Amino acid sequence: MTNTHPLITLLTDFGLQDEYVGVMKGVILSIQTGARIVDICHDTPPQNVPAAALMIEAAYGYFPAGSIHVLVIDPGVGTERRLIAVQAEGHTFLAPDNGLLTPILEKETLENIRLIDRREWYLPHVGNTFHGRDILAPVAAHLADGKPFRQIGPQIDPASCIRLKELHARHFEDGSIQGKILHVDRFGNLVTNITREDIERLSAQQLGENLVIHIGGHRIEGLQRSYGFAPKESPLALIGSRGRLEIAICCGNAAQKLGVALAAAVTIQRRKQG
Amino acid sequence: MTNTHPLITLLTDFGLQDEYVGVMKGVILSIQTGARIVDICHDTPPQNVPAAALMIEAAYGYFPAGSIHVLVIDPGVGTERRLIAVQAEGHTFLAPDNGLLTPILEKETLENIRLIDRREWYLPHVGNTFHGRDILAPVAAHLADGKPFRQIGPQIDPASCIRLKELHARHFEDGSIQGKILHVDRFGNLVTNITREDIERLSAQQLGENLVIHIGGHRIEGLQRSYGFAPKESPLALIGSRGRLEIAICCGNAAQKLGVALAAAVTIQRRKQG
Amino acid sequence: MTNTHPLITLLTDFGLQDEYVGVMKGVILSIQTGARIVDICHDTPPQNVPAAALMIEAAYGYFPAGSIHVLVIDPGVGTERRLIAVQAEGHTFLAPDNGLLTPILEKETLENIRLIDRREWYLPHVGNTFHGRDILAPVAAHLADGKPFRQIGPQIDPASCIRLKELHARHFEDGSIQGKILHVDRFGNLVTNITREDIERLSAQQLGENLVIHIGGHRIEGLQRSYGFAPKESPLALIGSRGRLEIAICCGNAAQKLGVALAAAVTIQRRKQG
Repeated sequence: MTNTHPLITLLTDFGLQDEYVGVMKGVILSIQTGARIVDICHDTPPQNVPAAALMIEAAYGYFPAGSIHVLVIDPGVGTERRLIAVQAEGHTFLAPDNGLLTPILEKETLENIRLIDRREWYLPHVGNTFHGRDILAPVAAHLADGKPFRQIGPQIDPASCIRLKELHARHFEDGSIQGKILHVDRFGNLVTNITREDIERLSAQQLGENLVIHIGGHRIEGLQRSYGFAPKESPLALIGSRGRLEIAICCGNAAQKLGVALAAAVTIQRRKQG
Repeated sequence: MTNTHPLITLLTDFGLQDEYVGVMKGVILSIQTGARIVDICHDTPPQNVPAAALMIEAAYGYFPAGSIHVLVIDPGVGTERRLIAVQAEGHTFLAPDNGLLTPILEKETLENIRLIDRREWYLPHVGNTFHGRDILAPVAAHLADGKPFRQIGPQIDPASCIRLKELHARHFEDGSIQGKILHVDRFGNLVTNITREDIERLSAQQLGENLVIHIGGHRIEGLQRSYGFAPKESPLALIGSRGRLEIAICCGNAAQKLGVALAAAVTIQRRKQG
Repeated sequence: MTNTHPLITLLTDFGLQDEYVGVMKGVILSIQTGARIVDICHDTPPQNVPAAALMIEAAYGYFPAGSIHVLVIDPGVGTERRLIAVQAEGHTFLAPDNGLLTPILEKETLENIRLIDRREWYLPHVGNTFHGRDILAPVAAHLADGKPFRQIGPQIDPASCIRLKELHARHFEDGSIQGKILHVDRFGNLVTNITREDIERLSAQQLGENLVIHIGGHRIEGLQRSYGFAPKESPLALIGSRGRLEIAICCGNAAQKLGVALAAAVTIQRRKQG
């Protein structure tokens, strides 16, 4: 007999060198004995909201509809920032109102945003430093256990929620796009805020063929299909697994080799016809 | 139908760059097919028993009663050190007798301490270097599977178990407290051995208001409610989520900014009346 | 009622700083709601196939028979390299054909090797950069869900699969063995490609007693039973938990203290009689 309760996923910047993530799971399992919990990531750069926003955008769609996604990148914990609950695309998201859910708030299927304000679902003692444990974990467990979403707190106006502009690249009149590096992954691949759709607008030909990319003084021509298609040690550009432009080095670490870090500028434009 | 076997938690210093933790889970799941296993932490500083003792103290209470906590920070593996099983506070703990369970041994609800000595429950071949895999994981699985605790081995005298003095701060006659940094967390927050109760003894007024803290040449006045209440980049003190005094920097890394490391001294005293 | 579906284990070099591992779990759980997934390791050195081959060799036997092991260390993703499925020792392994499964391919119980080529089991859209997500995770989920192994794709000749020579040490006519460091573990222990069997061939006496080991200009005499048996700070050699020769330092980090890194040479020979 299969456990059919919704999945709960966790995405935090807590790292794994402390007991914080384990404690959140203990709280969830104390409320819902059969909870199924999956870690999306806990090692997002500390307090880097845009990088985490990119991750939830890339990840949630691979989980079953009905999943409950708990996000805790929360530098404002204990201050007046709000905690919000959002339903969109058949999924539920719980997070601080600090821009983390920007990609979700922009979905056309956005149904319902509520303030998290249901004290009876919290831990009995709510401290000031760890609302992931004291509020978000128990609220997620109560939802997974079948409590109705509408009981979580009052509805709020989507327009009142914080959104991050930097998740979007800028298009210029000359047809070029200016973006930036939002995340450096484990392999040193540089993940930009430039989407596949941005590039499709730019490139009339086969995707990316006639494009030139500039980053940190380096020039890259065209897009590759995958990492292994460029010569070893050469920088290359591709649409990565998140659907965004990435700069990589075949069998190497692009961040190190190109000397490029978080927030660096990237421009992309059509190649001049000679 | 819900799986109601006890949870097994794991707390080790194995890190996640090897297969060690995964192998312990394989051993558990080979014995108890339906085992539910939760990681508390595997990245405690290698062979640092006090930091791990602090973590289990902070974590176990958030898990359901009946949980079985397996701790493997074990620099003495393969030598004559004992493995012990402790029941207290409605939980079960399995660990080397090296001080790891100090906070548990001090509980008034301490019921039962036994030597782990039930060879039939071990893996068939017990090596000398990995008792987490060969002894503690299978013993935990047998307990979770319903075997009685008393079969684990003979009772032992609680007074014979190793306890760590450094988990406690020292109180002086002039009313000051001298403590030390036992753990640096993911955010660079400095976790001390000074408890909320230590501070309540010191501060007659509202918690912490009239206190001065000295650490590594820095002076901090008063306690904050949370990280976000101090100016950006300023050091602050608070009672952290573990119920212990922490030194932090709002939106920054206190360990780096203050140049303070593990084992550094912290003193706390009443502010002189002017 | 216990979940008796096969376990799925994951061994990748994805690290934990991205959402990659979480997304693979989401894909699996979207196909098989009750999937039980265990992480073996995700922090193997990036794109280091031999270190990961050592890990699967050390780990799989601790999991229940019938487990499905998914390995993704895949620098050739998106190029023409094959993905293969192997049955041996009562376990199933899914991996790129790049040498990762060398220790499995050498088993006498090797039963069946198939090309992974069952498009209906893949995600609907297969990209070029993340076949762990788009192919291996869903194929594993379908197998765990009871689909027959033979449907995975056509049988292939075991002799056509890539094997790594460097997993084996070299024996010389003078009785010495030359090996190398294949992995540095969390504790700085240096794991070699020299097996217990290699050493048994060399040492006529009690295991290791009459042996001398040379590594990075250091000389170590004999084998110890465990880490705690050598004086603090002294280098020692032992058969580690993987059944391979390890060089360690009691209560210290051998890689740092001895100045030895991945791929360094190790020789071992009988002590000259004086």
